[in-house]
Amino acid sequence: MYAIGIDVGGMSIKGAIVDEKGSIINSGSIETPVEKEPLEVIADLADFIKSLLKKSDIKMPEIKGIGIGIPGTVNDKNGEVIYANNIRWEHVPLRAELQKYLDVKVEVNNDANCAALGEVKFGEATNYKDAVLITLGTGVGTGIILDNKIFAGRGGAGAEGGHMVINPKGVLCTCGRRGCWESFASATALIRETSKAINANPETAMKKYVKAEGKVSGRTAFLALKDGDEAAKKVVDEYITNVALGIVNLVNIFCPEVVFIGGGVSNEKENFIDRLQEYVDRYKYGGDRNPKVTILKASLKNNAGVIGAASLIL
Amino acid sequence: MYAIGIDVGGMSIKGAIVDEKGSIINSGSIETPVEKEPLEVIADLADFIKSLLKKSDIKMPEIKGIGIGIPGTVNDKNGEVIYANNIRWEHVPLRAELQKYLDVKVEVNNDANCAALGEVKFGEATNYKDAVLITLGTGVGTGIILDNKIFAGRGGAGAEGGHMVINPKGVLCTCGRRGCWESFASATALIRETSKAINANPETAMKKYVKAEGKVSGRTAFLALKDGDEAAKKVVDEYITNVALGIVNLVNIFCPEVVFIGGGVSNEKENFIDRLQEYVDRYKYGGDRNPKVTILKASLKNNAGVIGAASLIL
Repeated sequence: MYAIGIDVGGMSIKGAIVDEKGSIINSGSIETPVEKEPLEVIADLADFIKSLLKKSDIKMPEIKGIGIGIPGTVNDKNGEVIYANNIRWEHVPLRAELQKYLDVKVEVNNDANCAALGEVKFGEATNYKDAVLITLGTGVGTGIILDNKIFAGRGGAGAEGGHMVINPKGVLCTCGRRGCWESFASATALIRETSKAINANPETAMKKYVKAEGKVSGRTAFLALKDGDEAAKKVVDEYITNVALGIVNLVNIFCPEVVFIGGGVSNEKENFIDRLQEYVDRYKYGGDRNPKVTILKASLKNNAGVIGAASLIL
Repeated sequence: MYAIGIDVGGMSIKGAIVDEKGSIINSGSIETPVEKEPLEVIADLADFIKSLLKKSDIKMPEIKGIGIGIPGTVNDKNGEVIYANNIRWEHVPLRAELQKYLDVKVEVNNDANCAALGEVKFGEATNYKDAVLITLGTGVGTGIILDNKIFAGRGGAGAEGGHMVINPKGVLCTCGRRGCWESFASATALIRETSKAINANPETAMKKYVKAEGKVSGRTAFLALKDGDEAAKKVVDEYITNVALGIVNLVNIFCPEVVFIGGGVSNEKENFIDRLQEYVDRYKYGGDRNPKVTILKASLKNNAGVIGAASLIL
């Protein structure tokens, strides 16, 4: 038996047929037609799923269900998308609507929650049942797993750790508050602070990497750090402190076995993952008296979305 | 049948026999002998419980169990106190030790968690099953109830919402971090800021209330606010903002049905509870799209400790 994992993003809708071991059998994607009405998009999605099955020569009875990850708030009980800003959906009965086309179990959840569940079920480190996954991307997504199950708060309206204020003097967030964790810890924030530091430091080695890559990226400061560049060191130090500060806030609430870090910056091991571990060991409430919390790079990477969504079923 | 609720504090150990409706049948207290070894204290506690039963003419077979609230980190699975700073206990096998004297079920948990469970089971507003209780006292205790059960994090080492950093420029906390929520939102913080404002504003009406009460208290600024005192208004406004900021952080993670507020300041309805409600309505993630979160004064007050502890059994 298989599951279908669907990852709905602002740019594209990715889909994959996933087996019970979490391996992708076949995958594909369509553009997200944000100009279309949600109900039309769901009709397109049904066609996409059918075509994915057809090209894989897999029949509907071999499918246990369809899992869908949405970048927004979802009522996981009834499969309704409450609100997803990026795709402009509000109160869309996704499960009910998709089941008009496909007579199969449909589970819907927030994409960060899906990624967390996928990591626990099918990632490299699957021997954990209490986990927090943090995705450092355009924003900061947080997925929380308690006893092998997604914890999304009442009505799916919680687990928004990215929107925890960590400094009221911070920048205004789209959520209406000032100084949310994501405005300090996202890749967007890292790039913003890197750009500022480059402008303020004409001699910085970071310029070399911007030229080579053609842009300021989340890697720029980490690359220049290895050259001993002072401005880059300052950017990285502050970024790590801000990321770690929010992680400890969540650790003090959940005390998970593991915190998985996703997003490109998680590839930096000794200059990032290892330093987050040191910070958490040092500053988590109760210190050594309380159970160890391990910081790990998330392993599913680009497939986190579809495998995570499929893991709602598998 | 009855339960015995024990509330261990830094100054005294309170105990009560509680019936299945959450009513106190009889109660008493002994001083907390911090100079004694924990095992001696537990022997004293056993004697205290026996004397409480004797004076109430209730026999051990009528007791379903003993619930104990501890101001610290507890492993609720095995009843071990991991660490409780105020009473200087570290790795004390409370359940196992107490059961040497009393052959009955013993449950141990953090005191804020007990208070939260007590409020949900026996408070004035018992029609809630997902709740956060916040106690604004010497520090800030947070108790989290998910689906009518205490959520204390893995190994009982979580639910420390008071130790969530909300402003890294804040004062150093006993936990080793700077700017924890409790250093802004506790009654201690309110009194500290009130004293500062009185020193900086020789003409403030707050002085009148300090004289009448004989000290600066958590009420001082709220009393002077009603006289239209500007310095008091500033103290109250900043305090409310800091309390509300942390509440919204927790709401964005748990989306509880209700947030109970305990501590003396919770008696201020229109100038505190109602304003917290407005702030939460305005700033919680997703706004009106997400379920309503109600802010209520905790109702068990001075009995929260013993009734909460008893509710571990009842």
